[in-house]
Formats: sequence, structure tokens, C-alpha cells
Amino acid sequence: MISRLSQLFVRTLRDDPADAEVPSHRLLVRAGYIRRAAPGIYSWLPLGLKVLQKVERIVREEMEAIGAQEVHFPALLPREPYEATGRWTDYGDNLFRLQDRKHTDMLLGPTHEEMFTLLVKDLYNSYKDLPLSLFQIQTKYRDEARPRAGLLRGREFVMKDSYSFDVDDAGLDASYRAHREAYERIFDRLGLEYVVVSAMAGAMGGSASEEFLAVSPVGEDTFAHTDGGYAANVEAVRIAAPDALPLDAAPEIAVLDTPGAGTIAELVDQLNANHPAEQPWQGGRTLKNLMYRVTEPDGTWYPLAIAIPGDRALDEKRLEAALTPAEAVPFTADDFKAYPQLPVGFIGPVTAGGERVLGEESTTKIRYLADPRVVTGSHWVTGANVVDQHLSGVTCGRDFTVDGVLDVAEVLDGDPAPDGSGPLKLSRGIEMGHVFKLGRRYAEALGLKVLDENGKLVTVTMGSYGIGVSRAVAAVAEATHDELGLCWPVELAPYQVQVLATGKDQAVFDEADRLAEALQAHGIDVLVDDRKASPGVKFKDAELMGMPVIVVVGRGLADGVVEVRSRRTGEKHEVALADAVAEVVALVGR
Amino acid sequence: MISRLSQLFVRTLRDDPADAEVPSHRLLVRAGYIRRAAPGIYSWLPLGLKVLQKVERIVREEMEAIGAQEVHFPALLPREPYEATGRWTDYGDNLFRLQDRKHTDMLLGPTHEEMFTLLVKDLYNSYKDLPLSLFQIQTKYRDEARPRAGLLRGREFVMKDSYSFDVDDAGLDASYRAHREAYERIFDRLGLEYVVVSAMAGAMGGSASEEFLAVSPVGEDTFAHTDGGYAANVEAVRIAAPDALPLDAAPEIAVLDTPGAGTIAELVDQLNANHPAEQPWQGGRTLKNLMYRVTEPDGTWYPLAIAIPGDRALDEKRLEAALTPAEAVPFTADDFKAYPQLPVGFIGPVTAGGERVLGEESTTKIRYLADPRVVTGSHWVTGANVVDQHLSGVTCGRDFTVDGVLDVAEVLDGDPAPDGSGPLKLSRGIEMGHVFKLGRRYAEALGLKVLDENGKLVTVTMGSYGIGVSRAVAAVAEATHDELGLCWPVELAPYQVQVLATGKDQAVFDEADRLAEALQAHGIDVLVDDRKASPGVKFKDAELMGMPVIVVVGRGLADGVVEVRSRRTGEKHEVALADAVAEVVALVGR
Repeated sequence: MISRLSQLFVRTLRDDPADAEVPSHRLLVRAGYIRRAAPGIYSWLPLGLKVLQKVERIVREEMEAIGAQEVHFPALLPREPYEATGRWTDYGDNLFRLQDRKHTDMLLGPTHEEMFTLLVKDLYNSYKDLPLSLFQIQTKYRDEARPRAGLLRGREFVMKDSYSFDVDDAGLDASYRAHREAYERIFDRLGLEYVVVSAMAGAMGGSASEEFLAVSPVGEDTFAHTDGGYAANVEAVRIAAPDALPLDAAPEIAVLDTPGAGTIAELVDQLNANHPAEQPWQGGRTLKNLMYRVTEPDGTWYPLAIAIPGDRALDEKRLEAALTPAEAVPFTADDFKAYPQLPVGFIGPVTAGGERVLGEESTTKIRYLADPRVVTGSHWVTGANVVDQHLSGVTCGRDFTVDGVLDVAEVLDGDPAPDGSGPLKLSRGIEMGHVFKLGRRYAEALGLKVLDENGKLVTVTMGSYGIGVSRAVAAVAEATHDELGLCWPVELAPYQVQVLATGKDQAVFDEADRLAEALQAHGIDVLVDDRKASPGVKFKDAELMGMPVIVVVGRGLADGVVEVRSRRTGEKHEVALADAVAEVVALVGR
Repeated sequence: MISRLSQLFVRTLRDDPADAEVPSHRLLVRAGYIRRAAPGIYSWLPLGLKVLQKVERIVREEMEAIGAQEVHFPALLPREPYEATGRWTDYGDNLFRLQDRKHTDMLLGPTHEEMFTLLVKDLYNSYKDLPLSLFQIQTKYRDEARPRAGLLRGREFVMKDSYSFDVDDAGLDASYRAHREAYERIFDRLGLEYVVVSAMAGAMGGSASEEFLAVSPVGEDTFAHTDGGYAANVEAVRIAAPDALPLDAAPEIAVLDTPGAGTIAELVDQLNANHPAEQPWQGGRTLKNLMYRVTEPDGTWYPLAIAIPGDRALDEKRLEAALTPAEAVPFTADDFKAYPQLPVGFIGPVTAGGERVLGEESTTKIRYLADPRVVTGSHWVTGANVVDQHLSGVTCGRDFTVDGVLDVAEVLDGDPAPDGSGPLKLSRGIEMGHVFKLGRRYAEALGLKVLDENGKLVTVTMGSYGIGVSRAVAAVAEATHDELGLCWPVELAPYQVQVLATGKDQAVFDEADRLAEALQAHGIDVLVDDRKASPGVKFKDAELMGMPVIVVVGRGLADGVVEVRSRRTGEKHEVALADAVAEVVALVGR
């Protein structure tokens, strides 16, 4: 295909869009690939659409290569299936809901688990029909609270979602592996540097859920990894609990006067100053108790106290992941008014007199969950539930008990990996794909059963596999751009070559056309810059638009040469006209 | 591509779906091409999706061939642009409206005039940028009051919509012609029998709006045509008004006692019986006056009286087209209570005493519109506004005046064509495409102007061009099916060949595979029926699914022959194995 810039529907912008936070957003808008239609909702211009379609083609080819079959569901869906699985409610404000003219509740599909499950139930009924993998490439909707970063987190976006259906766990294992391998091939072809991280610890140590993260400083996901091979999304990191300690080794409770020490830092300072015998006092010996209001999807709420070592912050994203679909927000001053026995800054599980004030069995009946490091026999400096007082020696299993473990403290660079493979390193990534053993949740809720070999009805087990297709366009732009602009890999570039006709001679334009046609004969798509514009404008636009190879037809033509540049490396050299096509073909790799 | 029926995600159904009214719906569901997800909303199974994608490819190729550039807009859109053009209101209940989490009004795009206009305004500003044609293939939403006939009238559907942008009328003419010709090529390639009909009479006799109708008895559109080349959607037929008659030739008003003659049929019977001197009395000499309540998009309403010759029914669809975006419903008994001077069955424009009761200048002030045949000097038998009485000789221009012309009487087989090309014939069609000179309406409303050659701002003129892509799948099924099932043309069939392995010998299955691979080497897509099922089941399913060529590998294999059938003609003959591939390739036309 040959296109001409004088006719291509595109305009480059000199200035960054005001709302652009990340390079891909900035550059895709400036180079005329996409335009914002509403918050988190974008229109695709011809250049952007070409890249999107190329990503789709790669995804489609690799899904078909593992025998997955393409289907296509509506985006506008009835409420009932989502009601049956609880997601109509669980999705909260993230779901776009609407009513049709008959006031029937409908929704815009955020994902299609229910629809896939019902369709297979509709058509299949025997173990002989399985295994089955279905996929679609489709527009999805999520009413994000904070759409951001252009295509990276939008409210309307393109996803490939697929589901596998098997009669047993061994089948699911195989389907999961096939998808995982297809994803590796897809992300390899997209040219992304990516890591596969655990997204949830499997019940039996195995990984039931993994994410493919494109490594990127603008990624929203933080992952922890070691040189020893551990890799997990921070939300999925499960701190190894230390061994319990003997209760009889724990010190007695002592009251500490800590005037004004409403923060851990101030507390530690005072302890080091006033109780020198036990120096050094550190945050890790203290326990902070944070009060949250947890709201269930149905709107009911309960108070929750969370205990974590004083030297760590609570990680809001880990908390969100741990409690979803419920949502937690810190207690407000108003919330605290209902609990006068809990003085902010001095809250603890117990009073100096031994009365328990946190936990379902306590006087407040407030649910009390603690960091895994709060093991039986561990003792802590923590609030005395009296303003300006703390207690030392408060011992888990003796002075207080917790209602459960909640692993939501921040993970820090250098923390030991849960699997003992060394100190953790933290990096950021863009979630590009997710493979997930869904199991029987949806099949059970919607009654997807088949007859097994013995004629007995068994519930089907499912895998769920997603790829952010429109997001991939941005992720590749993030990974490949430089300070000059976009810089596409050959397989995704809208055109592999941009030919610049610089100069005013008709011969220059004619030669540019001739070159384009010769390249097209090699299956290469060429964008010819045939505008009446200065060479400077043409160079700048070519660099911004990011086609892999730039050919300059201009002054050299009189000497029978053109200039061939690699956009990525910036390398350029003059090539005799007769050799230009072969040179470009080699560079493009055709 | 080779697929195997034992693995293909499809199940044929023995029974018609309960809600299926038309063959395409019935067969596409039964053959496993689509499944209903909600009223008017369908999921595409692998077979159906392949056909849809092939239609998309044809449409894309032909649009690109006329230089139209592909873009892609969101389906979820902001309210503001649609507010600016009035369509937020005008669309009435047909628009799916919703609010996001911040209670911002949004909609699901029914068509994208506003978005295209704004995007061009965003990027372009000079006459040098034009002409421009943009298109997208995209999912659209309309909350139809009565979704019906499967894919023929759905609430979520795939459309190709395109728009042309020109500085002047001559440019629009050229863009319109290019699209019209591309549409002819598209519908030719789809193998549809179609007609191009006027959808709206042009201001200067030319056609500013034409529809491409696939001729089909299940079509919702009725069109009128003559052997002389006239063709128009009935909504667009404009009855030629007869010449005015001299007023002094009109008879005087006379009162007729017509007890109980509340219908035209009864009235004519009584007149023929009681006034034999003027026989034959016919409906065409009578004038009926129908009362409607017309509701504007903003919810306000007004009463409307419509006069049409008594021998014709009012055509509700012509009325709807004439009044849109307002909606008209017949007066209810309650509505009539407000007008005691209008007795149902005996309403007329005037009383025996000469008092005018219909028309904006009359005592009721009711707007009064009349059929084009109600010309000055025409005289009629019509209601006397007294129960059981009519008047004869009621003459237009003398006894009453009308507030305007409303051409909404039914068009009948044999009516003279407006252009004098002979008697009209009526046929039915499925609206497949629409080409329309939109003009400057949207450009004006949204401020799309460019600088012309003289540096003056001029408003851009636009054309609007649509094709029902998902509807085309159904239209082709309607046109090609027979009593056995679907029957696809080669270019649209999911697979060109279905190979049936009939029998239990492994050799049969091996040979079926071998044949499939040999055909695939010729670029032919093959579906192998490798199921453990009886030959009868396989034949029935192959006929229902409708691949163009069926190859039967079975008993003949021992004698070195297979059977090759054309699905369309039913012709079959045995072919030596050695010749089978060549034979099939020839049949497929590859």
C-alpha cells in the first residue's frame, strides 16, 4: 500500500495535549494516531487504526494457532447473567449500567465470563465436546474512577478475551499452558520486554493466576522480583510468616508515657530518648493499628482494624486487591466519634488493665486483622488506648488475638522473597495480559455441566485469558519511543517506510513515487511525504510519526543518491538509486 | 484453513427458534451461525463471524478503492455534540442513553455524523485538505421499538458508515457518485439482487438521497417502480398533483343523510342506493379526515387533521417518514372528547352552514393537511360534522382551505408513476445501503468551516453513506437460502467446501483429510465432517450449513470415486479420486 501525506487524514501537533501524563499518550495524540472523544474514550485516526489492526492480527493468529475459535459477543448485555454471578452488584461504579426503552436493565460488558459460559451451556453437553477454547476481540467498557494515560487506562477499550472449558483439572492445566505459551509468542511478536508475574498465590503453591507485564516506568503495576526467579505483582506477594515464639519468653506489659507521640516516628524518637536501656528502638518493634470503613458491594459496611509493623506504610493497592469487591476507606473524624475508646494515634488491641478493645471478641467487636509478622509470641509497642500513652510488651496470643491475617503492608526493596530466592527488587509494569484458572465459579453459578464418561453430570472448569489490545498499542509506543517521537517495530508500523520528497523539483516527487512503487512490489507499505512543506517540517514529522525506515529523496538526486535512515538507530547513509530498494528491503527485513 | 466439525464450536438445531419470523433468522440460528443474547442483540458463533468478516472485507476493499480512509470512533459518546445538532432529543426513545459514575450524560452512537464532523473540524482548515472521505466499520446501537427478524432489525448491529467532505456542491456530487459506484460494486460482490431507489425527492428533480434495497419478500421497505425506470421507496413517492379545476364548475354543497355511515364503504353503499342519479359513487370521490396527535421530540404535541381520498388507507410508514422526528398516533376516544364539534366518522372541513372547522384559520384551529389530489376546485363528499350526515360538493379553495400538502396516502399497484413512466409496481426490499447528500446541516451546527481559495471561511458540505454490514449477512441468507437451508455464495461462505466422511472405515477419514489438505493448497477453506454420525445427519447438516460445494467420501472410495455436489443446484456426480481436487477447484472458481 502506498499513501500520500498530502491526502492522509492526519495532522501532527506541535504541542503536547494538556491532559497527557505519559509519553505514549502525548506522542500518539501529537503524531495524529488517536484523538480524545471523552474522558478515557478515544477515536482512532487512520495511522492509529492501522497499528491497532496489526496488533489484532497477531493476537488472532496466535489464538487460532492453539486451536481457539473466534466468536463475537454483544457489548450491550442483559442484566440477568451478571445478576446470577453477583457481578451486577460486585462491579460497583465500574459498570456502565443503562435501561432500554422498556426500562429493562442492561449493561456494557466489562468482561464476558457469563456470556461465554452460557453460550457453551447452550451448545454443549458432553465431555466429548471438550476441551474447548473460545476467544473474541471486542470493545469493552469500564467506568474507571480515574481514566488516565490515554490508551493505558480507558473507559472504552479493545480486549482479546478467551475462555477454556475442560472437564477436569488436568485439562485446565493443559489449556492454561497453551494460552500461556501463546501469550509469550504474542508479546514476543509485539516486541515487548515483559515479565510473567504471579497475580495470586495458588492454593497448592502452584500459580493459578499470572500477569504479563510490559516493563515500563509508567506502568500502574508494581512487581517484586528476585534474581532467583521469583516474580509477583506486589498485590500477590505473600509475606512468609515467621515462626511463632514461646509465650513465656515475652516481657510483661509496661505503660510508657509518650506525650504527643501520635506518629511512629515521634514515638520511636521518644523511646530512644527516654528509655535508653532498650535502645535502639525501631519502627519494626512497634505495631500501628489503622481503622478502615469497609463497604460491601451491597452498600453495607463494617469497621476494620488493621495491624501492621510501625515501620511500614499500608499499601492501598494491596489492601484493595485483598478486600475486593469490598472497598475500604480510612476512618474519618466522624467515624471515630462512634468509638470514643479509640484515641487516634494511640490505638491498640488492649488497655493497660488488660481489657481487649480490638477484635470480634473484644468490647468494641471491631474486626481485627494483622500483618503476617504478627505471630503468636511476638510482642509490640503499641497504643494504650489512652491519649499520650503506649504499652510495651503487648504480646500476640497472650494479651490479644487477631481475627485473621491481612497481608497489606507495603513491600520494600530488599525484603526477603517469600520463596527464599533472595532480596526483592521492585519494578513497574503495564499489565498486558492475564492468564487465570477461573475454575468452576461461573460454571457453577450458571449451571454449565456436561456428562462425563460415566454418564454423570460434572461441572466444567474454566480458564480465563485476557489481552489488552488497544493498551498494547500504547505499551509498544512506551517501550519504543525516544525523545524525537514514536518509533515502531516493523511488524506494527502503519507503514514500514516513509519516503520524504524534499525539494521543489518535480523529479524529486517522481522519484519518490517510483521508489514507493518499487518497495510496494516487495510487499512494503510506504507513506510518501509529498506535501509542499520544508525539509525541516518533513524530517520532524517523520521522526514524530515513527516509521522504521526513512528515505530522503532530495538534493542528492542530482548525483543519483538518496538517503536511507533507520528511525531507531538514527544511522543514515547515502545509497545509489539503483541500490536503494534492496537496501530498504534489507532494513525492513522483507 | 481446514476445520473439523468434531471440534468446531457449532450445533445445528432441529427446531426453528420460537421467535423466528423470517428464513434468515430461522436458518442462521438453526445452522449455528448466531445466537440471541437479548431482544434484537445477537452473539456471533464461529461460522457466522466468518461470514460477517468476509462482508467487512469486501466493504473495506471497495471503500479503500475510492480513496476513503478508515477511522474508528467510540460507540460510547458524550452528549454535547448530539445536543448541538438536536439529535439528543430528536432520536427519542431510539437512543440508548446512560450516565457515567459522575452522572455525565452519554449515549451509544446510533450514527456518527457529529463525531466525524468534529474530527474533521479538529484536523482540517483549508480547501486544500478537501475532498476527504472517511469511513468506519463499527458497532451501532438503536433501541428499536420492535426489534425483529434476527439480524435484519437489531438493536446492536454492525454498520459501515462514511462521510464525504467537500468545499462545494460539485465536489459533493463527485463524492456522492464515487460512493454510489462503490456501493454497486459491493452489492454486486455480495451477490445481492438489489435496486437503487429514490429515498427523497431532490429539490431540483435530482436524487439527493438513494437507498440500495435487496429485493426480498421479507423486506420492511416497500418500493414502487416502473418499467420506464422509475424506482422509489414508497416513503419517497411524491404523487403528482393534478391541475387545479375552475371553481365555477364545482357543484353547490348539498346535505346527504347517511345514517350509520361512519365508514367509507358504508357511505358509498348508501350513496349508490339512495342517490342513483349520480352513480357510480366511489371512494375516490369521498374525502376522509383523520385525526392524529403529533408529538414533537421535546414532548409537546398538537392535533393534526389529515385529508385523503376515501378509497385509500393512510400509509403509517409514509406518515412517519413525512413527520419525523415528530411522531403521530391516531386520536383516542379521550382526545376526541376535547373536540365535541368533530363527530367520529362524520368529520369534515366545513359545516352545512359554511362554518370552517378544520384548518388553522377555522373555529378549532386544528392544523389541516391534505393529499396532493386535493387541489383547488376539486370537490368531495365528506363529513358534515353532524352524526349521520355528509356533504357533497365540498370544494377546495371555495368551501375550505388546507394548511399544506401531506402525501401519506398508500401507494397502490397500478398508480401512475410521478414521472409519467407508466403504472407503478410495488415490491419489497431490505434496506442495505443509503447514500445521501447531507449538505451543510451538521457542518453548520458544529462549525466545520475551511478557508477557500480566497481566504474566506466557507461551510463544508457533506455526504453520508451507510451500509448495514451485519444486516447484509441476513440479506444474503434471505436471497440464497432454499428449503434445505443456507446456501452461501463462494465469496461469503465460511468454508467453500464441506467434506463429509461417511462410513466407519479409517480410510474414509484419512481420504477426507487428504482431500482437505489438497484443497487447502489451492487456497480453499474446507470444513471436514469427521463426526461419528450417520451419513443422513451429515448430509442434512451440510445442506443446512450451506457451504457451496459438498464432497462425500464414503462407499465409493473402494471404487476410487467420491461424490461432488453443488449445494445450490443440487447437481451431483461421482468423480475419480485423481480428478476430485481439480473438479472442486473448478466448481469453487479458484
